Amino acid sequence: MINQHYLDMLSNKSVIRELSEYATARGKEIGYENVFDFSLGNPSVPTPEAFTLDSVRLLNEMEPVALHGYSPSLGIPEVKQDVADSLNRRFGMDYKAGHIFPAAGAAGAIAHALRAVTVPGDEVLVFAPFFPEYVPYINDTGARIKVVPARFEDFQINFEKAEEMLTENVAAVLINTPNNPSGVVYSDETLKQLADLLERKSAQYGHNIFLISDEPYREIAFDGKTVPYTAHYYPHTLTCYSFSKSLSIPGERIGYIAVNPACEHADDLVAMFGQISRGIGHNCPSALIMRAMADTVDLTSDLSVYETNMNLLYDKFKSLGFTVQRPGGTFYIFPKALEEDAVAFCKKALKYDLILVPADGFGAPGYFRIAYCIDTEKVERSLPVFERFVNEEYR
Amino acid sequence: MINQHYLDMLSNKSVIRELSEYATARGKEIGYENVFDFSLGNPSVPTPEAFTLDSVRLLNEMEPVALHGYSPSLGIPEVKQDVADSLNRRFGMDYKAGHIFPAAGAAGAIAHALRAVTVPGDEVLVFAPFFPEYVPYINDTGARIKVVPARFEDFQINFEKAEEMLTENVAAVLINTPNNPSGVVYSDETLKQLADLLERKSAQYGHNIFLISDEPYREIAFDGKTVPYTAHYYPHTLTCYSFSKSLSIPGERIGYIAVNPACEHADDLVAMFGQISRGIGHNCPSALIMRAMADTVDLTSDLSVYETNMNLLYDKFKSLGFTVQRPGGTFYIFPKALEEDAVAFCKKALKYDLILVPADGFGAPGYFRIAYCIDTEKVERSLPVFERFVNEEYR
Repeated sequence: MINQHYLDMLSNKSVIRELSEYATARGKEIGYENVFDFSLGNPSVPTPEAFTLDSVRLLNEMEPVALHGYSPSLGIPEVKQDVADSLNRRFGMDYKAGHIFPAAGAAGAIAHALRAVTVPGDEVLVFAPFFPEYVPYINDTGARIKVVPARFEDFQINFEKAEEMLTENVAAVLINTPNNPSGVVYSDETLKQLADLLERKSAQYGHNIFLISDEPYREIAFDGKTVPYTAHYYPHTLTCYSFSKSLSIPGERIGYIAVNPACEHADDLVAMFGQISRGIGHNCPSALIMRAMADTVDLTSDLSVYETNMNLLYDKFKSLGFTVQRPGGTFYIFPKALEEDAVAFCKKALKYDLILVPADGFGAPGYFRIAYCIDTEKVERSLPVFERFVNEEYR
Repeated sequence: MINQHYLDMLSNKSVIRELSEYATARGKEIGYENVFDFSLGNPSVPTPEAFTLDSVRLLNEMEPVALHGYSPSLGIPEVKQDVADSLNRRFGMDYKAGHIFPAAGAAGAIAHALRAVTVPGDEVLVFAPFFPEYVPYINDTGARIKVVPARFEDFQINFEKAEEMLTENVAAVLINTPNNPSGVVYSDETLKQLADLLERKSAQYGHNIFLISDEPYREIAFDGKTVPYTAHYYPHTLTCYSFSKSLSIPGERIGYIAVNPACEHADDLVAMFGQISRGIGHNCPSALIMRAMADTVDLTSDLSVYETNMNLLYDKFKSLGFTVQRPGGTFYIFPKALEEDAVAFCKKALKYDLILVPADGFGAPGYFRIAYCIDTEKVERSLPVFERFVNEEYR
């Protein structure tokens, strides 16, 4: 007999994936260039040339048995050292190689982090709006997701509700900054207040609450700013990173967990990630990709297109009268729909071949997400279509 | 608080990994060429040149955004088609692309297969001797491993015990042929008898028992023979394969699950693997590696060294009076120790810098495993050392 839980999940597939598949199918009918596909967070800019050249160099120069051999179960030491050095240099941390665990993107990193610091029955607190994949990430460990409602005025954290909901059986708090879907960057003040809350509640309950910080958009920051590094604010922080966005290699499945050296059980935690891998059959990302990543760890793709696109869309939405926060990073923008039911709103948009994602699954009903990791030329062409859509349907 | 289960696993690490680490450390003292390291199943021959050339070609010629973009959650369709075509051509099956799910090696494949066809509390039957990593693979799903004792005369299946132990709460049977650690290939007769047992018990209990067939050594077969393809014998077979051994790329973490089209719920199962990936943060192997694998799916490294090594060791062990099966494949041989306690035996061998793995963890106490995926020159040099070891310690 097959496992009913996973069978049931089939009828509850990712809305984003379904809209993306619709967009692809529609593209076959009318030409994909005519579909304004804002559904999927798939980077639109190429990986830095150095990543390609270094991959080729490794393949041509390194002895194949050494290049493609098993990685140690906690990752290739030189790769871990390169990641630690980069984080120390850029964020003033003091990671050693042993604090870094290479993972299959942020998804793999979060899955390992959650398993290490929760047991079935525990609760994990997340703040709306949040990436809907957090639901399977958390619930499939046996823990339960608990969603703090959004602070709609700026999409920072709703601390009044958080205070109330951070009860004794919350083992970990999972945050995402810059945020998918809102594009908002948690401020210095927000992170200080969050750390204070976690310190107080940890003391009150007599056990440390872990902070799992999901940061795949850390390098996509606008207006010349840098994103505050969350692990600076709270010792028991597990930083989950992915190179999917910064190096534009989401299909290569490469990221890491960095365990704050000040974290309780820091060394044990990394060793435990290795044990968790045994059970879920993971055992490190591709060895070739790990090495090429390490050699280009401080580089990024040319990410400026995302800021250009953001500005075009933000200005248009403001001028059309939408309620919308100006994103500080990511390649998402998150306006309020022009009717209460964002699903109905996004359905109407389909008539104009605008593929928008309603945010019910993100814990912010009434809003919708736009992923603008597409060519600027297409964003420009979409602007009059948005205008026509709004005028014809809502004026 | 951290998860005690994974913390406890730290004190129960893989004996193989520990011996391998000992061998590495000892190598630093006396030169690794002087350590007869038979501990780890890490292929010793290079990947086919075509794999390297094709990887380089993909990096140089394919558009980076397309090459490194997200794969569909069930894998890249052309890659799945290439794998299906290869299996159909070689083994007379009728897989479609939709029956193939790319996975992170056999480990990832087995982890997915187990989650799809068991629920917590179910039992999974394995046959001694077995790969010790089956314990975390199975137990971490919430199911329980149940070990059928070995048939020591030939390391085929002990059907008398299997008949008795295949009770109603056994959801799946996990086999491994050619077998790690014994090197034995399950015969046509064994597979027929196994299929008959599974058919009878399935009918008796009113639910199909799934056969999970772990086949990473399928291409390493000796004496010009081919390994019987297990899915031919039983419809409800999930074939778990890895390219780690055949293409000598274990660090690249690439394999697949092939669901027999005749399998109950065949299409649902593949879709369920995609859902399982969401919870464990997996989402496909590296896109680059998947494509390079697909282009070289019918190739193998030059695997002849393993047969050469096997013959040298087998002849030596026979002449020294060991009880030992002649392997039909893999790069393992599995002799009986010369004293009851194989741990003590392997400890004595360390004095001669012979790194052998005692088989208590493989469910065959009193035996030891030799992984002869090393240079033939080193195997040749080890032969007089084995002779001296036996003569000095056991004559």
